[in-house]
Amino acid sequence: MCDAEPLVAHRAVAGDRLARAARHRKAPSYLAPDLQPSDTYVVVIWNEQIIDILTGFDRTLAEIARRALPGAEHMPRLRRFRSSVRGMDSRTTVERAQRLQQLHAEFKPLVLPTVWDVWSARTAAGAGFPALTIGSHPLADSRGADDHEGQTFEEVLAAVRAIIAAVDVPVSVDLEAGYGQEPTDLIAGLTEAGGVGLNLEDTVHSDGGRVRSTQEHARYIAGLRAAADDAGIPVWVNGRTDVFLHAEDASGVLDEAIERLRAMEQAGADSLYPVRIQDDDDLLAAVIDAVSIPVNSTAHPVKHDLERFRRLGVGRITYGPLLQLAMTDAMKDMLRPWTP
Amino acid sequence: MCDAEPLVAHRAVAGDRLARAARHRKAPSYLAPDLQPSDTYVVVIWNEQIIDILTGFDRTLAEIARRALPGAEHMPRLRRFRSSVRGMDSRTTVERAQRLQQLHAEFKPLVLPTVWDVWSARTAAGAGFPALTIGSHPLADSRGADDHEGQTFEEVLAAVRAIIAAVDVPVSVDLEAGYGQEPTDLIAGLTEAGGVGLNLEDTVHSDGGRVRSTQEHARYIAGLRAAADDAGIPVWVNGRTDVFLHAEDASGVLDEAIERLRAMEQAGADSLYPVRIQDDDDLLAAVIDAVSIPVNSTAHPVKHDLERFRRLGVGRITYGPLLQLAMTDAMKDMLRPWTP
Repeated sequence: MCDAEPLVAHRAVAGDRLARAARHRKAPSYLAPDLQPSDTYVVVIWNEQIIDILTGFDRTLAEIARRALPGAEHMPRLRRFRSSVRGMDSRTTVERAQRLQQLHAEFKPLVLPTVWDVWSARTAAGAGFPALTIGSHPLADSRGADDHEGQTFEEVLAAVRAIIAAVDVPVSVDLEAGYGQEPTDLIAGLTEAGGVGLNLEDTVHSDGGRVRSTQEHARYIAGLRAAADDAGIPVWVNGRTDVFLHAEDASGVLDEAIERLRAMEQAGADSLYPVRIQDDDDLLAAVIDAVSIPVNSTAHPVKHDLERFRRLGVGRITYGPLLQLAMTDAMKDMLRPWTP
Repeated sequence: MCDAEPLVAHRAVAGDRLARAARHRKAPSYLAPDLQPSDTYVVVIWNEQIIDILTGFDRTLAEIARRALPGAEHMPRLRRFRSSVRGMDSRTTVERAQRLQQLHAEFKPLVLPTVWDVWSARTAAGAGFPALTIGSHPLADSRGADDHEGQTFEEVLAAVRAIIAAVDVPVSVDLEAGYGQEPTDLIAGLTEAGGVGLNLEDTVHSDGGRVRSTQEHARYIAGLRAAADDAGIPVWVNGRTDVFLHAEDASGVLDEAIERLRAMEQAGADSLYPVRIQDDDDLLAAVIDAVSIPVNSTAHPVKHDLERFRRLGVGRITYGPLLQLAMTDAMKDMLRPWTP
């Protein structure tokens, strides 16, 4: 019944990345701490974890598999090591989380480009941004999935793990309404994938699009805070409310929005994200005035202006789906002269 | 030892796409030919194939699994249906392959934007292009893998399957040097994933970067042609040579290039792709003059000009990594005003 191949191995020249990973103990240290870029190596992976990195030329794959994992020689076959070193040890994750905290203090606002794959992440990091966000909407569009919890938590984690592993900067992940997970499991999954920040919204798409009550959402945020504390990782929690998004008249729900934002602040959120008021100076100012932690605004990279957000006191800027959307426009412009 | 979960199920509102797939029998017809967009459905997938789509509200997942697959109730768990309908039936693939043939006759040159994920594919198809190519280099960059056969054939197929399923136009896939597969297996994997065209190059990166001899490469192309014929699918074979790429002086290897291109034409290639001469009018013209099937040129979507290629008689244009590269530049420009 089972033809899965969880055992993965690859033998090739190590290259800088793997050697660096080994030196920085992103891979278990007993495996090959002295791996050099010029070495030939074999990486053995079991259940998405590196369980062995072997150097040397004199072993057959069968011997390697046997040494790495009792019984492994019975696995259907060995596959080549997929792409990058998977998983980071907890020390690296703590350091990245601390760095993300520092950056929020250092930059006002802190701009965190919202990316969706390894290419867009490397482009943004390469452009000089000290941290990134991954958006659920552009991630889903890149993978052909539906937004609004159309992917499972496991699928999201598998996708973001590869992105996070490809850059050296802290990455925060939009986790929608939590994919039906308990806060402890959400934090465990996120941090195991190397993520050190998250968005958490109050629209539960997987449950008919119902909106959590102020207290229910605040309790979830408090659960995340406690889980992160227990894990010893200062995960940056960006508490999001969609109350403006669902309202016909945004101004009419300002009081409710402020109540929700204050409840999240009280519950231990690090920043607050009232979606859809990025074009309304008065609402942005009112919200910023009502809380004492950074307020996140969505921005369009072409249509909006950083100075305006700074003047209004916005603490943090992400692009949501708008960077990908602006890139869609750019691609269309680029392709126009070639269209049949 | 085995904790894989090949059984996947999801229960939700069907939506247009799944209903359309059921009506067009992209899913086996016994499963739910009358599925409506408003229906609640369960899709059961085994080994990446839809094996059942069940409607109705009165079944537990265990019952569904039992009905769908004897023994399935013993699987570790059911996962939600991932994204889009997987796999296309062979009729659809044949139709797409025929369409790709027609397009090569209809457009001179035929421009096939080179995409790397569902988002870029939908953007290019939405811009009006009647067919697409997937490039190994941009695909690898999007996924954080290495180009030059740094992904396994299975990984490439999994990635391109989702892209192909997300668009309604024929898609050709860059299959590098064939990932060490026999021609029959390469054609079977490609067409099972819905691909109806392929690039095949003579640099074997998985084998130390050696270059196949003219005859060896032509034999592989002939094998692809025979395998496609046997499968009854007119897969478009774009035979590539890297002889100009590896030469210090491109003009100095013109004779060898022509020999290789003619051997591929003789072996049944549908078009020919001499890489790296896109800026050299004389070499392009010489190559085009020497063969009787369309010659493919790489183009940069911003720096090159369609009319020039048309004037030179180029039959087919792809972007290789250059569309993604141009998009990298566009993203950097877009992000510049936001850089700290």
